[in-house]
Amino acid sequence: MVKTIATSAIRDLLELTEQPGIISLAGGLPNPDTFPVAAIEAATARILTDAPTTALQYGPTEGHRPLREWVADTWRASVDHVTITSGSQQAIDLLARALIGPGDAVALADPGYVGAVSAFRAHGAQLVGIGSDRHGLRVDELADRLAEGLRPAAVYVVSSFDNPTGATLSARRRIGLAELAEEHGFWIIDDDPYGALRWEGTEPTTLRHLTDRTISLGSTSKVLCPGLRVGWAVAPPAITRAVVAHKQAADLHTVALSQVVAHQLLADPGFLDAHVAGLRTTYQTQATALADALDRHLGERADHRPIHGGMFAWVHLHDGHGRPVDADALLARAIAAGTAFVPASAFAVDRPVTGALRLSFATAPPADLDEAVRRLAGALAPDTR
Amino acid sequence: MVKTIATSAIRDLLELTEQPGIISLAGGLPNPDTFPVAAIEAATARILTDAPTTALQYGPTEGHRPLREWVADTWRASVDHVTITSGSQQAIDLLARALIGPGDAVALADPGYVGAVSAFRAHGAQLVGIGSDRHGLRVDELADRLAEGLRPAAVYVVSSFDNPTGATLSARRRIGLAELAEEHGFWIIDDDPYGALRWEGTEPTTLRHLTDRTISLGSTSKVLCPGLRVGWAVAPPAITRAVVAHKQAADLHTVALSQVVAHQLLADPGFLDAHVAGLRTTYQTQATALADALDRHLGERADHRPIHGGMFAWVHLHDGHGRPVDADALLARAIAAGTAFVPASAFAVDRPVTGALRLSFATAPPADLDEAVRRLAGALAPDTR
Repeated sequence: MVKTIATSAIRDLLELTEQPGIISLAGGLPNPDTFPVAAIEAATARILTDAPTTALQYGPTEGHRPLREWVADTWRASVDHVTITSGSQQAIDLLARALIGPGDAVALADPGYVGAVSAFRAHGAQLVGIGSDRHGLRVDELADRLAEGLRPAAVYVVSSFDNPTGATLSARRRIGLAELAEEHGFWIIDDDPYGALRWEGTEPTTLRHLTDRTISLGSTSKVLCPGLRVGWAVAPPAITRAVVAHKQAADLHTVALSQVVAHQLLADPGFLDAHVAGLRTTYQTQATALADALDRHLGERADHRPIHGGMFAWVHLHDGHGRPVDADALLARAIAAGTAFVPASAFAVDRPVTGALRLSFATAPPADLDEAVRRLAGALAPDTR
Repeated sequence: MVKTIATSAIRDLLELTEQPGIISLAGGLPNPDTFPVAAIEAATARILTDAPTTALQYGPTEGHRPLREWVADTWRASVDHVTITSGSQQAIDLLARALIGPGDAVALADPGYVGAVSAFRAHGAQLVGIGSDRHGLRVDELADRLAEGLRPAAVYVVSSFDNPTGATLSARRRIGLAELAEEHGFWIIDDDPYGALRWEGTEPTTLRHLTDRTISLGSTSKVLCPGLRVGWAVAPPAITRAVVAHKQAADLHTVALSQVVAHQLLADPGFLDAHVAGLRTTYQTQATALADALDRHLGERADHRPIHGGMFAWVHLHDGHGRPVDADALLARAIAAGTAFVPASAFAVDRPVTGALRLSFATAPPADLDEAVRRLAGALAPDTR
């Protein structure tokens, strides 16, 4: 018997929307125009000349030591807390292997990140969806579930600029979540690929500074580029040792050349600061264009929130009578009209959801964002009559 | 509760033997002097100039299409049989996820490859060791176990130049194994990282040409270099779909730059043929030096076999009275004498094993191989009195 697992709805959708002429806002990809190609090329040439064996031989399972040290410095942890992983997706998968037994509960926002859903489910976790709103995970609802007897092994959260909802977990809820973790003994897995893409405001106190029961995940995918497949987990040493043992069985180690290149770019403040400033400007410009287009073409039919960072807008659509639009049904019409989005149902964990959709502003230039929303409004029209 | 798994004994040993002055034959690493650094540098520069987005953006989970096509052509399969993995270690791990349920049996040679042992065990497999000799896995013993009721989900085999024993599965046993797979409905996982490193004779008919119940694994680690982390699985489409679904949860996709570079080198016959010819010459020269040193310094106390390829010699040691030497006890004395090997016990699956050791001839030049065996003979002396 072959044991397969459900593939993500996003993946199937992406295939559908890669036709020419479609302006897709469905993707989850960062903007390739922002990739630091020249810096990567220079770093690659340098390491292949200066230390080819470091780049090309088998390497340590826990990761390239200088990169681990950079993560430890940046995250204010000691180096024995740090494992370099093949993207933060692998960090989620290895943590599932290390922390989750069959039937163990893992709680997360519903709608939630599909990559986490598939990794936890692949290792037998029982997923428990918790509501979320513009301030992120509904920690009050989590508290109610815990009071009713829920005992999760872990609570997974994308604390800054959530995928799909774009929400940032508020300061008050972070404190509440940290208190619940200590009271009930679960781990908080704080996945933070988007936090550096903030152009307005400051992050509330990071969860790892509120409780030692936090495992922090980071990634170079949105800050440098995804193709390097470099992420990391910052966790207490006992968990780090288990993660490393599972990683040895899973893939021995992360690509050495990727790790060395990532380290050279991340550890060069002259490069990194200017690069991230450029990223923020690009994404802010596009987020503003998308918000303006939503107001222009959809007006009161689109509820959306101010966007302060990340890659995604979460939009609730209503018809002319204030009723939620069926986003799944809308998608087919939108594709026919030449645009695409991801309907909320693709991110559902254990409760039905409709009327909302995820729009990515990361890759399309402002004029395309405007045209995409114009097409979306045209597709919506039958519902609004 | 944190679920860890046993780390490999080899890994702990390697740390012990990385002291200066030790000539270690314990490693499992290919020779870094053979790495095609200039070709990798040129291919990297080319792709980063010509198609940076292909190299740096998220890519398809099943792998870079041209590399999949090269594997399909080379392995005489269709492209929907091919998944590119993060080294062949990940292929083993993903196959364990796709094929093995908790308690399912997996049979393999005992002693066996530790990376396979840890990946299968991590996913709850019950490992069944089958004896092996100079012709590889004892297929007669497997047949007996099947007759007694053993029903493995898979039989794992390193068919050419096994790690650790160096044995190549004979033509007759390949036919027997294929017949058993068809009769009993198990999958043969044929892991072949070393087959290209053959300098004498020809490979018996490959298992995948004997039965459709073969899943073939390949790797660039020993042919190009390990740091790229590029391997592949060639399997029927239903299994490939399950492997791809598990890979999406595990790490989304293999590093794109590595795949593109690997493809450029593998698909260039002018490069590949000359490179592999050079590899074979280097390894043959070193294998001959090791065999000569064993004869010179240990004489009849060392039973070893002619080496026709791969990276490892498997040596049975006897004391002066024909009794097997305790290889575990010998290791500490060998390290004190300035050399190291991996004792057979490190590769034990489910039966005790002693008196044998794995020597790698891949990395040490001929003079060092001679000196290492001279030191080993000195360490052995107390046993031979």
